[in-house]
Amino acid sequence: MTRGVVGIGGGIGASRFWRALLRVLEPAELTLVVNTGDDLWQHGLRICPDLDTTLYALSGRQDAQRGWGLSGETFRCMDALRDLGQEVWFNLGDRDLATHLLRTGLLGDGTSLSEVTAVLARAMGVGVRVLPMTDDMVTTHVVTTAGAVLHYEEFLVRHQAAPEVAEVRYTGAGRAVPAPGVLAAIADAGLVVLAPSNPLASICPVLAVPGIRAALRTTAAPVLAVTPIVSRVPISDPGERLRAASRAGLLAARGLPPTAAAVASLYRDLCRHFVLDAADAVECDAVRAAVRDVIVVPTLPGTGPPDDVLARAVLGARRHEAV
Amino acid sequence: MTRGVVGIGGGIGASRFWRALLRVLEPAELTLVVNTGDDLWQHGLRICPDLDTTLYALSGRQDAQRGWGLSGETFRCMDALRDLGQEVWFNLGDRDLATHLLRTGLLGDGTSLSEVTAVLARAMGVGVRVLPMTDDMVTTHVVTTAGAVLHYEEFLVRHQAAPEVAEVRYTGAGRAVPAPGVLAAIADAGLVVLAPSNPLASICPVLAVPGIRAALRTTAAPVLAVTPIVSRVPISDPGERLRAASRAGLLAARGLPPTAAAVASLYRDLCRHFVLDAADAVECDAVRAAVRDVIVVPTLPGTGPPDDVLARAVLGARRHEAV
Repeated sequence: MTRGVVGIGGGIGASRFWRALLRVLEPAELTLVVNTGDDLWQHGLRICPDLDTTLYALSGRQDAQRGWGLSGETFRCMDALRDLGQEVWFNLGDRDLATHLLRTGLLGDGTSLSEVTAVLARAMGVGVRVLPMTDDMVTTHVVTTAGAVLHYEEFLVRHQAAPEVAEVRYTGAGRAVPAPGVLAAIADAGLVVLAPSNPLASICPVLAVPGIRAALRTTAAPVLAVTPIVSRVPISDPGERLRAASRAGLLAARGLPPTAAAVASLYRDLCRHFVLDAADAVECDAVRAAVRDVIVVPTLPGTGPPDDVLARAVLGARRHEAV
Repeated sequence: MTRGVVGIGGGIGASRFWRALLRVLEPAELTLVVNTGDDLWQHGLRICPDLDTTLYALSGRQDAQRGWGLSGETFRCMDALRDLGQEVWFNLGDRDLATHLLRTGLLGDGTSLSEVTAVLARAMGVGVRVLPMTDDMVTTHVVTTAGAVLHYEEFLVRHQAAPEVAEVRYTGAGRAVPAPGVLAAIADAGLVVLAPSNPLASICPVLAVPGIRAALRTTAAPVLAVTPIVSRVPISDPGERLRAASRAGLLAARGLPPTAAAVASLYRDLCRHFVLDAADAVECDAVRAAVRDVIVVPTLPGTGPPDDVLARAVLGARRHEAV
């Protein structure tokens, strides 16, 4: 048996990539460690945006147009909340609410987030093993130059990534423990892939959980990152543009430009391979300053050859000795 | 200014009566003390069936056919929960969920149930003052002769009032405190009305909150009860039939038959007036054994003269000295 692939990532960008990977990889070969730094409590419910996006995408339920939430969704409950005079900035669909109700009910009964996630994955028929990065509460906070401390989703959704960012904090990360199975999966992996997710909002919160960064440094598996940034392809989709603005705003707070090389520099102590988009091939040397092996392929869906070119390029880095 | 009317009751039967009363009474003259013994936590949400039925009815939002929930409701969230493999025995509509989300969120922030209820009433444009009986958690439990301890809603909705009842318990009532304003409203009232609600499921939980029964015994206001039982009118509506079965099952556990006289006997220490339905006029003497003044009028909607005959008969018992 070949060793499994461990994927680390967030929501929308990561899920699109996992689906591409699953064109050439069996679900049982993939374990995902998903960012929970975006998790929030809204109206008494525990919302896990990245876990839900992952589960919805892997079960074929996600709204492909919007990128988040379920297809064929309605928003009658949120409309009713607005009718009750409530400000609703985080939209939850009526069917999506079932996920949050089930999760919140189970958490209230003492079930861990890992176990809840396994219940949800099973209920949705997801064959991939999906783990939260931790069962503890970690919150990505964006501190603005105006001094406001915003939950990341508040910064992204409510404020449309507009405020200038002074600092990104992973509140609670210091006391968090990796979820059961996370460290073992990394140690036993044949390949670890950092998804094309917002580095500071979706990857670094995972790396901030004590033990995970060390596990990535010490695993025998090669660690590969896929760039979330393709500088030379214009973005037309409004959702993508918002996410790009958020990525750039958070990188700026670290004094970094919104480039693939800047992302690579964040992973320099971990990564052996970095996948750069073919459109940004001129950045190859800049990336190589941080990560020695640069793989140049088309990474965006619909802009080059079929997705499995990317998937095969990524899986080419996998170590193939038997377990 | 004449003294106000205080109404004590539960959900469906009570709300129909409050609406009849409001044909001849100004909303600002009425204060309701609503049973919360049916309150339950479902999927992490606090549900207050009787408070919600009351608010929905008074704001003209309730589904007149079903008797509970909102008109024009959809159930997509509950359908999605079933799709996730969950047993759903307590149906929550998509728009109704907004009420529970708002309430649960506010309770989680430390807001009391009284304050939450005031927020909801204001948001729905309800001019009547609606108070929960208590801000504490009190749960009506039905102990079956088979030894099961069921939440009242579980007995009613999930088990369709079928199990034989050995005992009715008001768990937590001994430690509960009347909600702010309840005792003062009773003390200052010109009339207190016990609604035509299930006596053991909707009225007695209120009376079980320490201080409320004593306040009813000592107030200068006359206390009047409206019979929830009309023995000689056949029930065709399935919902009504279920509620009648529940009423009878709970009364049987106290060794009482499902009659107006049996209901009157539960209130004998409190009530000066008892409204008996005209169809049950032959029970007049039996009722008088418990409550000295029996008022005989049609009490069921659509079975006699317009509702305001009942309302005027009830309000005739009000004391009219100025405040």
